[in-house]
Amino acid sequence: MSHIVDFEALGKRLAGKSVPRATSGTLSGHAAGEPFDKLTCAELCAMLPGKIFRQYEYLNNLYTKHLNAKSLEARNKLIQSPTVLFLLSRGKNATENWSPDAQFEEKQNDTADILAVDGDFFDLIDVKTKNIDKKAQPPNIISAYKLAQLCAKMIDNGEYDTFTIDYFGIDWTLDGTNLVCRNTHHANLFRADPSELYINWAAAMQIQFHVEECDQSFAGSRELWARSYLKHFTDKASDRAQYTLDKYVTPFLKYIR
Amino acid sequence: MSHIVDFEALGKRLAGKSVPRATSGTLSGHAAGEPFDKLTCAELCAMLPGKIFRQYEYLNNLYTKHLNAKSLEARNKLIQSPTVLFLLSRGKNATENWSPDAQFEEKQNDTADILAVDGDFFDLIDVKTKNIDKKAQPPNIISAYKLAQLCAKMIDNGEYDTFTIDYFGIDWTLDGTNLVCRNTHHANLFRADPSELYINWAAAMQIQFHVEECDQSFAGSRELWARSYLKHFTDKASDRAQYTLDKYVTPFLKYIR
Repeated sequence: MSHIVDFEALGKRLAGKSVPRATSGTLSGHAAGEPFDKLTCAELCAMLPGKIFRQYEYLNNLYTKHLNAKSLEARNKLIQSPTVLFLLSRGKNATENWSPDAQFEEKQNDTADILAVDGDFFDLIDVKTKNIDKKAQPPNIISAYKLAQLCAKMIDNGEYDTFTIDYFGIDWTLDGTNLVCRNTHHANLFRADPSELYINWAAAMQIQFHVEECDQSFAGSRELWARSYLKHFTDKASDRAQYTLDKYVTPFLKYIR
Repeated sequence: MSHIVDFEALGKRLAGKSVPRATSGTLSGHAAGEPFDKLTCAELCAMLPGKIFRQYEYLNNLYTKHLNAKSLEARNKLIQSPTVLFLLSRGKNATENWSPDAQFEEKQNDTADILAVDGDFFDLIDVKTKNIDKKAQPPNIISAYKLAQLCAKMIDNGEYDTFTIDYFGIDWTLDGTNLVCRNTHHANLFRADPSELYINWAAAMQIQFHVEECDQSFAGSRELWARSYLKHFTDKASDRAQYTLDKYVTPFLKYIR
């Protein structure tokens, strides 16, 4: 299996749909488009009933179904793939402290907005919304370091086909008190040329791109993708180390006696 | 001259004073204490009439008094000290585009909240407010890189006594709908041991400390301070470059064929 969601069909369902504008806040930034995130989730639920979850909701369901698994180790074993476990699980303490009365809630730095699950295959989906009447910086996609760790795990475990990561872009404009979906875009992370991914070191090492501008030409294996990305990441990290020396050390050495 | 402001007297004027709580927003973070910044400025104006300015206000006054100075070069010459110019001036475009009808407004990354000016001597004062009922990270003090550039300029120009930089800390608690000043603190940047300054590289290279915890034991000359800081800064930048290699390059090299 390589995909669960038909993103073209999803785009058709969303085209022209509107959501009420939030009563407060600006019309730029991610927060304004947040109702589209919820709408996307609802449309996916209609398309794939029983297979769509919020990330925290999936974990809550999983732990609730296996209440006898109480330790960190036992709970971690509920997700068979070490790579998927790395992507989905909360921290050590949070996982140990989970209980039916103290379940997980939505968390900003969860990897995915939406999880599509079919058998043992996971599609991690992030929704990126954009007011197309405003200029916007490319959004944060994923931590470049987290992705490097993920690639290392894929290679360590020879695990290349248990999950994928998709980005779904929603362009909207304001219409009275509603936001209207004007266009949608889809990009799969592992079809992007890894050597073209932009890493913003100053912005917490986030990979950044506009979904519609993401190159989708990579046709090699997932293993090749992982190794190519690690080459790219280590090259850029080496560049960053050299930049730190060139900008913050060399110019000041003459003042030090 | 080495100082303008009597911070002990300022502390006595502020002790026990209260300001109305903002109608929205949380009670942690810098924004909540912002009314104390304005109150401090007002008290200083009463103590030193005609000598207290907001940074943007000083520049507006200066350019308004010298309307014939229109070019970037002419405007920059209005501040004699190259070091003070570096600390106070806005960017190239902003300075060129200034006009009586398009004056500067307050800007988040201005170096100082308040400027005390006596003749050719400048005291740059930053007010740091803190809700002492909440745990808080040490606040951003100044960019470590900006401070390195400043030290290089001091040395380049042999200019060690035209300005100083002070931090004034205000501890407050909530009392009904008011914030009440419970305690105040003062630290002079150039009395801090430069080798003890903490640089948070991930937080835009900001130096961070709580005003009341700032070491004030440095007794050497300003030139020694500048050279010691540059030693510290370049050492830490070298460490950061090495950390980048150790954490983001070395562990992944084995995956690259």
